[in-house]
Amino acid sequence: MKRVIILIVVLLMCDLSLAQFRQGPQIDPPPKGFKPASTNTFISQYPAVNAETREAIFKVYAPYAQGVEVDLAGKKYSMAKDEKGFWTCISDPQVVGFHYYAIRIDSVAVMDRGTEAFFGSNWESSGIEIPEGPEGDYYRFNKNIPHGQIRSIDYWSEINGLERHINVYVPAEYEKQPEKKYPVLYLVHGWGEDENGWSIQGHMANIMDGLIEAGKAVPMIVVMPSGDIKTNSDVRKASGNITDIYIKDLVPFIEKTFRTYTDKQNRAMAGLSRGGFQTCLTVFNNMDKFGWMGTFSGFFMRPDSKIEDAFNGAFKDADAFNKQMNLLFISTGTEERNPKDMVETLKKHGIKNIVFHESQGTAHEWLTWRRALNEFAPRLFK
Amino acid sequence: MKRVIILIVVLLMCDLSLAQFRQGPQIDPPPKGFKPASTNTFISQYPAVNAETREAIFKVYAPYAQGVEVDLAGKKYSMAKDEKGFWTCISDPQVVGFHYYAIRIDSVAVMDRGTEAFFGSNWESSGIEIPEGPEGDYYRFNKNIPHGQIRSIDYWSEINGLERHINVYVPAEYEKQPEKKYPVLYLVHGWGEDENGWSIQGHMANIMDGLIEAGKAVPMIVVMPSGDIKTNSDVRKASGNITDIYIKDLVPFIEKTFRTYTDKQNRAMAGLSRGGFQTCLTVFNNMDKFGWMGTFSGFFMRPDSKIEDAFNGAFKDADAFNKQMNLLFISTGTEERNPKDMVETLKKHGIKNIVFHESQGTAHEWLTWRRALNEFAPRLFK
Repeated sequence: MKRVIILIVVLLMCDLSLAQFRQGPQIDPPPKGFKPASTNTFISQYPAVNAETREAIFKVYAPYAQGVEVDLAGKKYSMAKDEKGFWTCISDPQVVGFHYYAIRIDSVAVMDRGTEAFFGSNWESSGIEIPEGPEGDYYRFNKNIPHGQIRSIDYWSEINGLERHINVYVPAEYEKQPEKKYPVLYLVHGWGEDENGWSIQGHMANIMDGLIEAGKAVPMIVVMPSGDIKTNSDVRKASGNITDIYIKDLVPFIEKTFRTYTDKQNRAMAGLSRGGFQTCLTVFNNMDKFGWMGTFSGFFMRPDSKIEDAFNGAFKDADAFNKQMNLLFISTGTEERNPKDMVETLKKHGIKNIVFHESQGTAHEWLTWRRALNEFAPRLFK
Repeated sequence: MKRVIILIVVLLMCDLSLAQFRQGPQIDPPPKGFKPASTNTFISQYPAVNAETREAIFKVYAPYAQGVEVDLAGKKYSMAKDEKGFWTCISDPQVVGFHYYAIRIDSVAVMDRGTEAFFGSNWESSGIEIPEGPEGDYYRFNKNIPHGQIRSIDYWSEINGLERHINVYVPAEYEKQPEKKYPVLYLVHGWGEDENGWSIQGHMANIMDGLIEAGKAVPMIVVMPSGDIKTNSDVRKASGNITDIYIKDLVPFIEKTFRTYTDKQNRAMAGLSRGGFQTCLTVFNNMDKFGWMGTFSGFFMRPDSKIEDAFNGAFKDADAFNKQMNLLFISTGTEERNPKDMVETLKKHGIKNIVFHESQGTAHEWLTWRRALNEFAPRLFK
């Protein structure tokens, strides 16, 4: 037995040292005050974050490169090379929450392989989570409460002519209440992201688990589809009408697969950025199907556009709109384009049931949207 | 409305052209006979595969790099640069199925951002699926049969002191049979992979859906845990005993969360490569808890080791072993280290209920393991 074990250990060590070799010579541990980011792969020391100063240190092994940069939150940081071949830099203080970033090796934007992959800008990106104090508890895993499940499902879409992948959150009680039906929120990601964005970058399950356990939100099913139309490899470009896929294929599939209510009072839709725009297009053209809606950093109406004409005349008859829509939740970060004027225009026009939420100090980024979901979900289905 | 739409279209086009800019100038579509791989991100033209010749063309934009290579299936291919700054090469014919690969830009191994990310070798890797003919139907999505679900769950592990992420496959009928209990297979990935390997690289849900629908396998729950011990960022290195986590935290969590049988006749474990070794360590030390086992490309017993001593004496009393274990499934690809001699040794020693499966023409790769699961699952719980 000992010989067998020794053989195994040697085999595994070969594997491990091979992995280290690929990443270069022995890497120094992060300096005092810095810890590996929670978004790193489980063996990576870098990037490392200082929770107090909110700075991040990046380190990349590239002995033969001419120049290496970090591209983070709209700023490029030049990295300096040491004698071993590691390039290093330290960032400015970052907003807490999740940020995409890239490494540029001789001008080619690549993933930093110290982190897990997060789909953004239509490719797999590096990401870094900047930790924060107690506010962040609402989106962290809480071991003391029951947890829902994210169900990963491929379903066939006749309109798309392909299988489509969705994630569906069901609340913790779902299987303990085999007769109970639930309302459904359709929740869409932003441009360049995919159907995994809300559950991974957004920590939506932790947010929903906490809201439901605290009695702030009613137990609900949350469906997270892709906002893009994948095509087979003969075509391989976006085409067709995404709202048709939502309405004609997705909603019927969900309602036959899960125990859901099927009336508009129990159906909501929301999205971030382009997903907010998709929500407007879908809901305003199907006012008989949705009773609640939210658009996070994604309410695209020009302040000077004629309100009677906007979104195919959805707001033209304010009274009719008010009767049909229980909630029009519009949110933004204070550090991005602010739809405040449009909200005022809508209110003056007589649109009620608007909730306008501003996330203080955040831009077009995931903390804005985690906060938006945390404000939006408690207002649904009540 | 038109103005709003035009604004949106312009905004989206800016985004799209930005994305193209990052990837360089206009990229030529693949030549005749080549199509974008199914493992690509949905807008990527490359890598492109010729289904007939099983060659792949790779293309990377890196205008300032000194040299770029593709590292695929143990061979490095030098790429040639064109006047636009794209580097290109064509591979040898590949075995069908899934292969990890890397791009080397000035000797730094990075992801090819044309593909989705697949966790392998402890980091996010590029992957390419080489399509095949009818054999591959068993692991493709079949729109004409019912589908199970993969449930993505974080649960709290007292032993690990952290939440742990698992994927759990439940068969299509699971929610239609609210009183029925199911047997459970614990299925572990290989070294450097993670708990998503079986469902993404392995297409296990398609395989199980097909076997169950055809009546070849009994409906079962399949639990896919991580084979690594993640730690908090104060420690950030592997530690502890993974089989303790499986036995003391995972099995009880599964049995209280799902409708499972809880006796050994209804509990199986299998794994690939290092996961096969973990299966041996776990099952041979808990023979009262598992009635069925499989080790795919991962039966680590030296042919010359004393069989009485191997795995803590698990095989010492062949009759006792035969009474306790319904199935010892050992498999391999014909193009990798073959445990044939060990299997013969075990048989001569009197170990029965061994099934030995060889995957023709494949190495230490995912086609070997898709085939292994397809052969293994039908033999369970009968």
